[in-house]
Amino acid sequence: MTLDFSKGLIPAIIVEDATGDVLMLAYMNDESYQKTLDTNTTWFFSRSRNELWNKGATSGHFQHVKEIRSDCDNDTLLIRVDQIGAACHTGAHSCFFNLEKEVTEK
Amino acid sequence: MTLDFSKGLIPAIIVEDATGDVLMLAYMNDESYQKTLDTNTTWFFSRSRNELWNKGATSGHFQHVKEIRSDCDNDTLLIRVDQIGAACHTGAHSCFFNLEKEVTEK
Repeated sequence: MTLDFSKGLIPAIIVEDATGDVLMLAYMNDESYQKTLDTNTTWFFSRSRNELWNKGATSGHFQHVKEIRSDCDNDTLLIRVDQIGAACHTGAHSCFFNLEKEVTEK
Repeated sequence: MTLDFSKGLIPAIIVEDATGDVLMLAYMNDESYQKTLDTNTTWFFSRSRNELWNKGATSGHFQHVKEIRSDCDNDTLLIRVDQIGAACHTGAHSCFFNLEKEVTEK
């Protein structure tokens, strides 16, 4: 499918292939998406630094792409990866370590 | 944690609690996040319609919130839900039914 970049950057949800854990979310533009396809490692567009980055280039924590899916609107990506080391820059396995709410009642 | 809405809307990744499947991604502003907390069903902000919507209000396919996490930057949400019916407006279980690439080689 042709991805729809018309609303700007596309969020890419990164899932660990072996566990199904959601590791992180980062943004892609068309160029970073093409580099991801070409290299089978994840490339993103940094909104704060306004530049492309290859996840793992400085940390060694590369994400090797196993599968790429897009959603019904073609404006979100779901990418399954083999994660080398920690996904989060804090050293955590996943970026989603802040528990905001838990609903325990039935 | 206090969520960071300074860059605009926050993407919310919706995961089915029972299966771990990533169902969809939609966007929240502060008001829709508060309504999600208050009602334990998901509320989003539609970028195309420029209004809040309660997932399931028209389809009956509500998402009952089990857990809410935020990421290391407090600008992405990961929400585990009990999904009633289909998550996708197409009737699909998950919105991520378009396979873009599969990497099978070792």
